[in-house]
Amino acid sequence: MKDVEDIHRPMLNSLQSTSAKMKKIVLSVNAGSSSVKISAYSALFGQAPIQIAEAQISGLTAPPATLKYTRRGEKVINDEEVKDQKVSDQADAFDILLKTLIDDNGVPEISSKEDIAYVCHRIVHGGEFVRPKLISDETYHNLEKLSDLAPLHNSTSLVIVHRCMSDLPKTTLNIACFDSQFHHTIPDHIRTYPINQDIARSNHLRKYGFHGISYAFITRAVAEYLDKPVENVNIIALHLGSGASACAIKGGKSLDTSMGLTPLAGLPGATRSGSVDPSLVFHYASDVGKLSPASTKELHISRAEEILNKESGWKALTGTTNFGTITAALDPSSNSNLSQQQIANMRLAFNLFVDRITGFIGSYYVSLQGQVDALVFAGGIGERSDKLRQAVVEQVSCLGFGPVDKDANVERVGQELDDDHAVVEIAPESKKGGHRVLVCKTDEQFEMARACAEDGEFWR
Amino acid sequence: MKDVEDIHRPMLNSLQSTSAKMKKIVLSVNAGSSSVKISAYSALFGQAPIQIAEAQISGLTAPPATLKYTRRGEKVINDEEVKDQKVSDQADAFDILLKTLIDDNGVPEISSKEDIAYVCHRIVHGGEFVRPKLISDETYHNLEKLSDLAPLHNSTSLVIVHRCMSDLPKTTLNIACFDSQFHHTIPDHIRTYPINQDIARSNHLRKYGFHGISYAFITRAVAEYLDKPVENVNIIALHLGSGASACAIKGGKSLDTSMGLTPLAGLPGATRSGSVDPSLVFHYASDVGKLSPASTKELHISRAEEILNKESGWKALTGTTNFGTITAALDPSSNSNLSQQQIANMRLAFNLFVDRITGFIGSYYVSLQGQVDALVFAGGIGERSDKLRQAVVEQVSCLGFGPVDKDANVERVGQELDDDHAVVEIAPESKKGGHRVLVCKTDEQFEMARACAEDGEFWR
Repeated sequence: MKDVEDIHRPMLNSLQSTSAKMKKIVLSVNAGSSSVKISAYSALFGQAPIQIAEAQISGLTAPPATLKYTRRGEKVINDEEVKDQKVSDQADAFDILLKTLIDDNGVPEISSKEDIAYVCHRIVHGGEFVRPKLISDETYHNLEKLSDLAPLHNSTSLVIVHRCMSDLPKTTLNIACFDSQFHHTIPDHIRTYPINQDIARSNHLRKYGFHGISYAFITRAVAEYLDKPVENVNIIALHLGSGASACAIKGGKSLDTSMGLTPLAGLPGATRSGSVDPSLVFHYASDVGKLSPASTKELHISRAEEILNKESGWKALTGTTNFGTITAALDPSSNSNLSQQQIANMRLAFNLFVDRITGFIGSYYVSLQGQVDALVFAGGIGERSDKLRQAVVEQVSCLGFGPVDKDANVERVGQELDDDHAVVEIAPESKKGGHRVLVCKTDEQFEMARACAEDGEFWR
Repeated sequence: MKDVEDIHRPMLNSLQSTSAKMKKIVLSVNAGSSSVKISAYSALFGQAPIQIAEAQISGLTAPPATLKYTRRGEKVINDEEVKDQKVSDQADAFDILLKTLIDDNGVPEISSKEDIAYVCHRIVHGGEFVRPKLISDETYHNLEKLSDLAPLHNSTSLVIVHRCMSDLPKTTLNIACFDSQFHHTIPDHIRTYPINQDIARSNHLRKYGFHGISYAFITRAVAEYLDKPVENVNIIALHLGSGASACAIKGGKSLDTSMGLTPLAGLPGATRSGSVDPSLVFHYASDVGKLSPASTKELHISRAEEILNKESGWKALTGTTNFGTITAALDPSSNSNLSQQQIANMRLAFNLFVDRITGFIGSYYVSLQGQVDALVFAGGIGERSDKLRQAVVEQVSCLGFGPVDKDANVERVGQELDDDHAVVEIAPESKKGGHRVLVCKTDEQFEMARACAEDGEFWR
């Protein structure tokens, strides 16, 4: 697959348009199944964007919806219930968030929709797209077709893209940032599934990989921290949240990642099984090939995909989607009301997650032939669970990682990430052996705005 | 899962029956989809069986069927076409093999069916069975039920079990040896799938693992070679044939293995995809949840399972099921008539296989926390492909394996395995670092006979 777009890509320094010399407002939009988050940045072409404000609506699937709003780092609205306004889907939530931003007198830069130059949309599955893409009517149509590959994942974003294209002025550019694009460098022998290749080609069946916007941020942040050029950085990165994945990054580029054709493959998540025997689901229930009741005329979701994406993971093992609840239950000093069976289930979920994560670390250590600058924890769980980090690093100590420094891992990570350090080192002894252990506060919103700000094509 | 049978298991030295002091004939039967092999042994209770003869019929799915027969190590019949006899299934093949043995005057020990004391049947999926099992009517019924879990894998063996139960004298004991039983020691957090646990329990959905008869042989052979007690041996074993798997063995016991609920998971094989995104198959064809035309009233096989088990693997990538053809095509000195595209496909298949194998080695190195006595190659490809061994060991050199000694790997392996050495060392330098690299000529037939000969329950 050749990236034809790269060939005549305008060079940063060859841009002469006035547009490229003006400060512009970039919105980054991140829609999940139950929440929408927007971050507003002031950006100059070719420079790092500066955050102005951030707003989030949560609880779309568990009403009442609540609103958070932060202006220049200061909390203005904190989990306030959204009243008198319909929040039936992600697009409604986006409208409220945008209105909050426009109505705030403390943000004079954004006083009307016309002030917004770019909206960057996080799209999970980007198919063959290898970089951010201006969304024309044609691109939108392509994105809709991609939803066939990832019906559970792309549809939430497309609702907002659609709203922006109809409601925002023509001068506002909508840009699709793909979670899969970072992984376009995965070599053929790694991304190919050994199945009929005619069908693989016609149905676009291969490993794509996801969480790429996060991995792009992590790679850059770790390179800066290590004071190395990005193209010299080799890391094993773990994005661990309610969706979880691992990535082998060689010379700043994705070499392999644990998710596949869809985000289902690889590590388990809050409600996702991760990799299981591909024939398992046919023994799970007899009707798994049928369409789920959640399917629409446009989107076909088999019952099997729904079971493995929405009804599995540690929720299926423990009853909670909150990994913090699981680690808390394992603390012998905790005074929980859990039964012995419940605690055993929590321990099973924890040990299972550690086993699967450390398996990928071993596998990627070999892919990178041992040339690993750092093992990097990121994502909600990666940032917050010192117990998980401790257990993972202990298990991979045979590869030369660790030992974790308790003070750094338990106390300093929280403090320093709160103080807006992007990277914290948690195993200073490991550093001497050449394999560092880091925690990175990833920022997909910033990464999308940055990608927008540095792409000359969008600034002509 | 408690193995209640172990509790009152008769001790070897407490057996006083005459039966236990007599030499008896053990037949080991190994049925595949296209071939049946039987090996006849003379066995004394508690001692290693001695092979008398071996017979094989191949080509069941690609007629004409051909017969091979070896008596006391000497080839008697070599790929002779089977004429004047119906060979419509595995049971017919078994009848011909047994008749060949009985009619051979050179084997006076077996002159009638009455001379056969035991028939050991290799059964792929043994469900909860943790050791070989005498097949009563009730056991047979259980084995039939297990076929629901592995319809593509157990049915070929059950046809022969059924024939033996009806046609052999009542004094002949039929014993089921399970490919899954070696893996009953895999811990819960490794063998559990993170799915609804009520359904997992009721539908028996967990990792079972296969190739266990082979791994039991390998473990014992390597322990002997290393002059260590079996219970102190840690190895990463690779059984690489048209079906391929990897196994982490800790203290002589299975800790993890790449196959799962069925043999589909893990490494790709000749026609098997191995692990793919569990949702892939729903994007492969729209009717994958339906029953395959190959299904019978008793056995339900979805079209999806058939595609991933029978129409994938390196056959799908290259057109051949013969891995030797693939490696030969990559030899620059070969004068093949292959097109550049065909050679590229062969290279893709080879590199893909190496990538998946080395991924499991990295993963299992971590599971074993680096305490690995040896990396062991076995199975048809493991024994015969020096190129694959070379490529695999090179990729995992960062873990301290290798370098492979060219002379040992290319020349000596073939010679010594032909001379009936069970184990050959191919990286003498690696030995110094504590991580040996071995090739093992595995022998499932012998392992079944051995298991039969040492189980007091069968000799009462």
